[in-house]
Amino acid sequence: MIRIGIYGYGNLGRGIEAAIRQNSDLTLAAVFTRRDPKTVVLKTAGVPVYRAEDAQKHKDEIDVMIMCGGSATDLPMQTPMLAGLFNVVDSFDTHARIPEHFAKVDEVARKAGTTAIISVGWDPGMFSLNRLYASAVLPDGKDYTFWGKGVSQGHSDAIRRIEGVVDAKQYTVPVEGALSAVRSGACPELTVRQKHTRECFVVAEDGADLEKIENEIKTMPNYFADYDTTVHFISAEELKRDHSGIPHGGSVIRTGKTGFSGENTHVIEYSLKLDSNPEFTASVIVSYARAAARLAERGESGCKTVLDIPPSMLSSETPEELRKRLL
Amino acid sequence: MIRIGIYGYGNLGRGIEAAIRQNSDLTLAAVFTRRDPKTVVLKTAGVPVYRAEDAQKHKDEIDVMIMCGGSATDLPMQTPMLAGLFNVVDSFDTHARIPEHFAKVDEVARKAGTTAIISVGWDPGMFSLNRLYASAVLPDGKDYTFWGKGVSQGHSDAIRRIEGVVDAKQYTVPVEGALSAVRSGACPELTVRQKHTRECFVVAEDGADLEKIENEIKTMPNYFADYDTTVHFISAEELKRDHSGIPHGGSVIRTGKTGFSGENTHVIEYSLKLDSNPEFTASVIVSYARAAARLAERGESGCKTVLDIPPSMLSSETPEELRKRLL
Repeated sequence: MIRIGIYGYGNLGRGIEAAIRQNSDLTLAAVFTRRDPKTVVLKTAGVPVYRAEDAQKHKDEIDVMIMCGGSATDLPMQTPMLAGLFNVVDSFDTHARIPEHFAKVDEVARKAGTTAIISVGWDPGMFSLNRLYASAVLPDGKDYTFWGKGVSQGHSDAIRRIEGVVDAKQYTVPVEGALSAVRSGACPELTVRQKHTRECFVVAEDGADLEKIENEIKTMPNYFADYDTTVHFISAEELKRDHSGIPHGGSVIRTGKTGFSGENTHVIEYSLKLDSNPEFTASVIVSYARAAARLAERGESGCKTVLDIPPSMLSSETPEELRKRLL
Repeated sequence: MIRIGIYGYGNLGRGIEAAIRQNSDLTLAAVFTRRDPKTVVLKTAGVPVYRAEDAQKHKDEIDVMIMCGGSATDLPMQTPMLAGLFNVVDSFDTHARIPEHFAKVDEVARKAGTTAIISVGWDPGMFSLNRLYASAVLPDGKDYTFWGKGVSQGHSDAIRRIEGVVDAKQYTVPVEGALSAVRSGACPELTVRQKHTRECFVVAEDGADLEKIENEIKTMPNYFADYDTTVHFISAEELKRDHSGIPHGGSVIRTGKTGFSGENTHVIEYSLKLDSNPEFTASVIVSYARAAARLAERGESGCKTVLDIPPSMLSSETPEELRKRLL
């Protein structure tokens, strides 16, 4: 049995708790929280909830600690800290800062003799893997990543910060025409605007200036200004009824040429359609927690990413079973 | 530079020769053939062609030997034999016999201190990897593999053996309705007949009994009897004009549930659309030849499959570059 700790009990932490139940070789050993542990009610009976700052006291009860904080401020601080005590897995997803995060975690983990796997999930994660496999196999080619249709938490939050907005949900939507062009093997050059549109469902305060809100959304730099954006004003009831899920997904597509004169074209596509972004992310993380426990057992300390992990380490089945059943 | 040998110069061997040119860290060192080497003309100037039986003499000229024989009779004999002398990669694709082939190659490679990677290509190969990743991530789910639309060499050969048939090409075609049902997450139970149809283009001898040929095809056990099969009689010119390519492809789809009561459904799909089956297979093999050379350098001898190889080993880029560019 691999004993898992959950560090942070939000959407992702609850997803981890659910995912552990689907894997008979994993068990939830404890949850660590910054809230008052007495106020945290788990779905799993008999599992202790501890204060985050007491983690060190429970070092011997946990084989792998799964870091469930946010990438903006929690993980850059927490993962290196906890990697000094535990084998850890996180889902750090600020793409541009991964090399820096890797270096920090690697240094701590090497010193402590622990194993860390960072940036696990679907992007970064399964999408990264597929970009790697496809580009290794088709070196003369081009990659495309499309996201959606799905809810972007960051964009929804940005809308909520606008004056007069009560609540909002933003969907990132891939442009069908761009997807078809890429899938045809045509290898088009696509601008940001040509790849995705943004669709916003906004609940405004009574009497708010809707035109002003819509304009503020559509011209918001980085978030919306470079996209074709649609804004729908709806009631709080409609938002709750029609937009309370957190679906997401997308596709990684690589097209490339082979042959002595590049005469043959190939299209590789990996795509996800997810009802629940945090639950799927949790499912990926849990399989890499198994790999982290195995690497630690072999004494392979330091920081790794999904790109470094042999696929068979993710599975509870033996190599013999996998060869027989899946090859 | 990793020096590659090609053992067997047919469609796959030529694909390997073309793929090596797309990878600047690989070089074609020699081709080995059972034919008279004088009759074999390579596309690459200055590369020697040797007799297959002289391979041992050229042990020090080759870092990885790529086995390009057939799975029916060549590879079961050749891969274990050559693994005693070289690091080898093969594309052994008789799924049911992989455990046995693995055991034979592993024994020889361990004794000789060489590294072997077997069953590399797209199925087995990239499809196997995707079955593994998807089933590790969604343990409560179900896998589907669809093939095509593409040319099945084995089925085309079976038609050619019928009396009165001059030439033939058989396409395996996935049933669109079955694909859509699986992609919807519905998790249907599908019979062989419900998943694929078979479409045959046949050139018959002048005066042959077409009805008899069609009936023989449609009732052929193992190959066609379990499928809905369509037979088109065409001229030799039409066959050459419209059916001389070797396209293939397909999809691995896994659907699964997550959540405390399985309330969320996810669909993972990996799909390939290939203009040339042997050239794509060759491209996959060449990236695993790089991995074989690296494993050998680390002293990791014995037999491996794609399931055991860390993804980053397939790429010519450094781990730092990969983390920065692909994660």
